Amino acid sequence: MNYQKITTETLALIKQIVGADNVLTSEELMQPYSHDEVTDPAYHHMPEVVAFASTTEEVAAIVKLANEKMFPVVPRGAGTGLACGAVPIYGGLVLALEKMNKILEINAEAMYATVEPGVRTDDLQKAVNEIDLFYAGDPCSGDSCFIGGNIATNAGGNKAVKYGTTRHQVYEIEVVSPKGEILNLGARLNKMTTGYSLEQLIMGSEGTLGIITKATVKLLPNPKYMVDLLAVFPTVDAAISIVNKVIKAGITPTCVEFMDNITIKSVERYLNESLPDSANGNYIIIQVEGTSEDDLDEKMVLLDELCTENGASSVLVADSAKIWQARKAFAEAVRAESIIVCKEDIVVPVDQGPLIIQEILALAQKYDLITRIASHAGDGNIHLNILKNEHLTHDEWEEKISIFQKELYTEVYKLGGRLSGEHGIGFKRKALMAEFTAPAELEVMRSIKQAMDPNLILNPGKILDI
Amino acid sequence: MNYQKITTETLALIKQIVGADNVLTSEELMQPYSHDEVTDPAYHHMPEVVAFASTTEEVAAIVKLANEKMFPVVPRGAGTGLACGAVPIYGGLVLALEKMNKILEINAEAMYATVEPGVRTDDLQKAVNEIDLFYAGDPCSGDSCFIGGNIATNAGGNKAVKYGTTRHQVYEIEVVSPKGEILNLGARLNKMTTGYSLEQLIMGSEGTLGIITKATVKLLPNPKYMVDLLAVFPTVDAAISIVNKVIKAGITPTCVEFMDNITIKSVERYLNESLPDSANGNYIIIQVEGTSEDDLDEKMVLLDELCTENGASSVLVADSAKIWQARKAFAEAVRAESIIVCKEDIVVPVDQGPLIIQEILALAQKYDLITRIASHAGDGNIHLNILKNEHLTHDEWEEKISIFQKELYTEVYKLGGRLSGEHGIGFKRKALMAEFTAPAELEVMRSIKQAMDPNLILNPGKILDI
Repeated sequence: MNYQKITTETLALIKQIVGADNVLTSEELMQPYSHDEVTDPAYHHMPEVVAFASTTEEVAAIVKLANEKMFPVVPRGAGTGLACGAVPIYGGLVLALEKMNKILEINAEAMYATVEPGVRTDDLQKAVNEIDLFYAGDPCSGDSCFIGGNIATNAGGNKAVKYGTTRHQVYEIEVVSPKGEILNLGARLNKMTTGYSLEQLIMGSEGTLGIITKATVKLLPNPKYMVDLLAVFPTVDAAISIVNKVIKAGITPTCVEFMDNITIKSVERYLNESLPDSANGNYIIIQVEGTSEDDLDEKMVLLDELCTENGASSVLVADSAKIWQARKAFAEAVRAESIIVCKEDIVVPVDQGPLIIQEILALAQKYDLITRIASHAGDGNIHLNILKNEHLTHDEWEEKISIFQKELYTEVYKLGGRLSGEHGIGFKRKALMAEFTAPAELEVMRSIKQAMDPNLILNPGKILDI
Repeated sequence: MNYQKITTETLALIKQIVGADNVLTSEELMQPYSHDEVTDPAYHHMPEVVAFASTTEEVAAIVKLANEKMFPVVPRGAGTGLACGAVPIYGGLVLALEKMNKILEINAEAMYATVEPGVRTDDLQKAVNEIDLFYAGDPCSGDSCFIGGNIATNAGGNKAVKYGTTRHQVYEIEVVSPKGEILNLGARLNKMTTGYSLEQLIMGSEGTLGIITKATVKLLPNPKYMVDLLAVFPTVDAAISIVNKVIKAGITPTCVEFMDNITIKSVERYLNESLPDSANGNYIIIQVEGTSEDDLDEKMVLLDELCTENGASSVLVADSAKIWQARKAFAEAVRAESIIVCKEDIVVPVDQGPLIIQEILALAQKYDLITRIASHAGDGNIHLNILKNEHLTHDEWEEKISIFQKELYTEVYKLGGRLSGEHGIGFKRKALMAEFTAPAELEVMRSIKQAMDPNLILNPGKILDI
């Protein structure tokens, strides 16, 4: 990589493309664009320029200019990432997509919506809900994250158990390629074998193979009947071991979430509210949908039986607003406890959930780590947060975490799991990615990156080193 | 491309790899490997050698040797393709995977199966059905096609409406890359953002980016209640226009199939059986699953209402065996009528189904074409078969079809459709692919092919020209 600094001359050309009002160069104004939600300043890096694009053509023109002048372009959605995917680690230009925030079309007849990348996920959900339709992408940060970022990271969230991750919600994407070409990939079809599935390759590539400038997503009829059950278990193992049984029972739950007791107490403190059975309980939240009241009742009876057989101390119909507020407050509650947090996004096969949770707890004890655990247990996706022990220096902490991660991920990969279920690799997990991925697989990824982005313009230094 | 003929010396090395018993070189024995199910001899081409692989290591060794000696390798499953994807158009070696036909594991607890590529789709379905599980991949040729080919072409079939295409059934693939490396891609996970989704790129790439040597597929609990309804409509338009209404009603049908009247009569002749209301009827077959008898009843009532409102002359609970025998006999019935058939595999957005069917019928009239139509209507996927008029010479026929295709596909693409819903591009649709795909998109596909397969060893001349 032989990047050039953005000169005054290049800056003038950038201003010509997006308009002078849409360019930031002062340190102070650019500061929010130097990081995502990773609070540790060691992972922050200032861009040289921030530009706000308003159209696909502007995005394409910026990327073409970048290839000419050889500066990196880092696309940025809402900046809610947890892997430093939108941090400009080589400087260059942060291309902010927050002004491309229009819902362009909602088609009730054919059940799709076409949106710009800067549309907030919740805003889309609300808009389609008004006409009794449903968008199934549901990351926990839906009130702040953008659809473009959801697609770029193949965001998961709560409802992936039933509906799949973001890539399963997407029909079609408009993409600006690393060379600055505008591509329309995928189609509004349920079936297609018409050449390589470039849309699938680009979704989840964290802005390294293309910038998403428009997306057409699937809408579904709103589920008619729905309930949230809260099953409380006396032990972590009893809680986690119910999950595969629920999946196997053929109920097709929408969500199966887990919070351990220590985390429930952390959330209680943060919300200043008391939660049911919080003294010793470990939570499994199960959301199910039904086609009729009878259908829903049958599922609830079956779930009650399964949970009770598995040792649940109580199974209640939950206050949905309250229980999801508690689940979604997890990240904020952790943040309130510590600025320096190591957030793992482990994913393992669902049936291996109990084993990996045991391993996590054993390692936490071995290394004297302060853990908070919430898990999309129905997907085997575990958000393990480790809070820095106050007495450790930064270096001691980094070293401790590094040793812990190696042991943890050795076990995760042995069980058939992967580094990241939904947050992505970004910059933060790149070293672990290099360590745990087969060299031949990394080499294929590298060859594709190089073929599509010969100048390494787009979001360099993320996912893998070239 | 600078391919070399397979010399006696190279042949000896091939025999060393797979064993002399697993190599064919006589014209007579190789003849079945010179074509797929496209009957027109203009699309057949003899290989120089056919080799049967028994292990992944043998596949890898053959591909490495091919890179060294510069001969093309064309992977072949059951040879049931309809796009000449497995035809060795540049000669070289056909690598037959039919001996890699073992079901390696069925895991009921974690609901997955691991299979070799030469396992017949029906055989897998039967094996898992014995333990009350269900594999949702369901191409109409399930009694003959292989899982490996299903994955390579992202096969669709009847149940894609509810369960998605083959790519949605697959957790993990073992692949031999075009350079002869063994890669394990994907994982037994519902969620993953850990680098580029190479498994998604390779699935559906028709053997041009990798040879699938093993796959781990999802299993589901067997649906508890199921029914097939047959709705008969007096006009094609009334039949096709019901489809989007059914989807919108939120019933989540498993299959929605369409056959027009002329096709029903063709199938009757072939089976020598009479089908219900075949004098004037056009069929919509709707399969729905229920969680309980009540649930199924409610759906049937709703479907009956919808179909009747839309002009159905009758809505009956179908004799499942009989109606699916009729639907699946479509391809054989057409073959019995004519050796020379142009088989289109159009796909359009479901709500555009009525428009494209109108267009097809108008064009058929304009060009005096003999058509047979069966459609996975719930996916907007239309199998339009055109039978050669006896009085035309081969050249006249080819010219007529070519003009017709250009008009048809111009309309298909205008409606947001694509060339192939599930059969693939292979060799047969390559010219249309070049004509109807955006040059920038083709260029990205080409750059990926070249990066992954610099010697253009794997299934050259398919999907796109380089």
